Amino acid sequence: MTKIIVDCFGGDHCPDAPIDGAIAALGSFEDLHIVLTGDEAVLQAKLAERDYPKDRISVVHAPQVIGCEDKPTDAIRLKRDSSMMKGIMMLRDDDTVSGLVSTGSTGALVTGSLIRLGRLQGIIRPAFCPILPTMDGGIVGICDSGANVEVDPDMLRQFAIMGSIYMETVYGVKSPRVALLNVGVEAEKGDSLRQETYKLLRETECINFVGNMESRDLLSGKYDLVVCDGFSGNVLVKTTEGTALELLGMLKKSIFSRTLYKIGALFMKKMFADMKQFMNYQNYGGSVLIGTSKVVVKGHGSSKARAVEKCIEQAYRMHTGAIGPRIEAEILKYAHYEE
Amino acid sequence: MTKIIVDCFGGDHCPDAPIDGAIAALGSFEDLHIVLTGDEAVLQAKLAERDYPKDRISVVHAPQVIGCEDKPTDAIRLKRDSSMMKGIMMLRDDDTVSGLVSTGSTGALVTGSLIRLGRLQGIIRPAFCPILPTMDGGIVGICDSGANVEVDPDMLRQFAIMGSIYMETVYGVKSPRVALLNVGVEAEKGDSLRQETYKLLRETECINFVGNMESRDLLSGKYDLVVCDGFSGNVLVKTTEGTALELLGMLKKSIFSRTLYKIGALFMKKMFADMKQFMNYQNYGGSVLIGTSKVVVKGHGSSKARAVEKCIEQAYRMHTGAIGPRIEAEILKYAHYEE
Repeated sequence: MTKIIVDCFGGDHCPDAPIDGAIAALGSFEDLHIVLTGDEAVLQAKLAERDYPKDRISVVHAPQVIGCEDKPTDAIRLKRDSSMMKGIMMLRDDDTVSGLVSTGSTGALVTGSLIRLGRLQGIIRPAFCPILPTMDGGIVGICDSGANVEVDPDMLRQFAIMGSIYMETVYGVKSPRVALLNVGVEAEKGDSLRQETYKLLRETECINFVGNMESRDLLSGKYDLVVCDGFSGNVLVKTTEGTALELLGMLKKSIFSRTLYKIGALFMKKMFADMKQFMNYQNYGGSVLIGTSKVVVKGHGSSKARAVEKCIEQAYRMHTGAIGPRIEAEILKYAHYEE
Repeated sequence: MTKIIVDCFGGDHCPDAPIDGAIAALGSFEDLHIVLTGDEAVLQAKLAERDYPKDRISVVHAPQVIGCEDKPTDAIRLKRDSSMMKGIMMLRDDDTVSGLVSTGSTGALVTGSLIRLGRLQGIIRPAFCPILPTMDGGIVGICDSGANVEVDPDMLRQFAIMGSIYMETVYGVKSPRVALLNVGVEAEKGDSLRQETYKLLRETECINFVGNMESRDLLSGKYDLVVCDGFSGNVLVKTTEGTALELLGMLKKSIFSRTLYKIGALFMKKMFADMKQFMNYQNYGGSVLIGTSKVVVKGHGSSKARAVEKCIEQAYRMHTGAIGPRIEAEILKYAHYEE
């Protein structure tokens, strides 16, 4: 049995989206069991309205909710009875539980997980790894995208190893092409951090390092995993999302500005729907925290049931693919980095 | 008289684009004089085909060309007779010359300018500042976007001051809203560099600091100048350009995939043309290097005449707006940063 906790409060469509996502996920994996955290009365009432396998969903009462306005460090300390913190503590203390999915505050989830959960053996710092769709129909992982704003070359090498194993375990990418985010493709580009990391990655045999990547090539489909410090990784991911959203918004506004354009758009209705679908994060699951002792998946705050289902699937595949032991085995080969 | 050098070789549309851009710019500014650098025989032959005020364009012979394949440091040392290096040296040595415009190798131009030109008094390091169009029809400057991959808070404060004066001098933006690129908007976000810089910017009276900016808001129109280290600034600018290009490419590919979409697109022909125009860097001029003793403007490698004309206009406005003395006057107020 694989038991996964689903935090039912904190996201925009809570608690319906997590509940419906959980029920949908049960249909995909026979040995999956879900633990919902949140206000028990609310959750039981919602469950009573739905049809689901009663013996495969349990509820843990956690009446508090962590909001985006809560400062992460305060939330962890003061909201121990929140659906998120109860989930993190249960993940830590209950050996039968394998993973946690949450659509709540990113800051609280990352900080809470880093502080409360143990790390895998040999891991200096866990990293945050979201996925973006590429223009050739594939995906690209970005590791780290914000858990560690200050890093060193050894940490970046660990992100490369962890991210590679993740892309292979969850998405079936064979020998993922790993690139280092830099200001140019040549080996000597960037600051001393990038130059040292480049050398380190080149001599790391267990990864398929293909060199530096300029940020404009992120969506080109030429790379499966981009390694970066959490600061520039955050800029990379949010700029991509921001630019895509702004352009789509501009397109929409332009179309509605003239009747002629509206008529034209009718011919292209399916095309625009396909494009929107392509850029819909709900289809790609959440950002995972890699390197913690147990699996944590962060779904977008505006996740609907389908997105939560995808997050649960990610957590399930990470656990059943034994991502933790696999990472530990590889990291131990570079054991001098543990000091 | 304002004398500006135009490097006629190194860009994709050279030497026609620089020559035609220069002639066009002469029409806008009565006291402008242009010096073209490059192979004299080629340039004179091209000029002979054109109609222009003969006494306002001169040619300086420089037979070598710096290409993108040339390593910047080698190019500076070994290609002293190149159109770019001759331009930089003339800018340094000739008091009557006020600025240089080039569409050649960015690396060579920035490195060459940093090494060969002096800095304005009090400036720790010059910075590179491109402009992007925002969704509300305005523009936003990004400083630094790649000249300095390693920075400290004092340097970032100087970028804020220089960038503000630039936005005001060249684009007429009154009291430019300055933001610090960070992983979140709260004051305590980011690494120690960002935290210290935040404090420093807040107490700098000569700028209108409005706080941290998340990269997803770059094009929102809420900010006039974004301050960042050259590494993340480079990621910010190139990710924006890359995402926009990839999405436009996808849109185009989708339209051509079905006859129905092609018909629809006919109705929207003007709309797509407007969007393309909006995102066309040729309309926004080049990236300027701020903080060097004289003005340097880098046009995009694929600049056509119109883009070169815009770059010359930027250089002209920077010089006639006395950007150098204005920056020096402000920087001197924070004179302890000179140490």
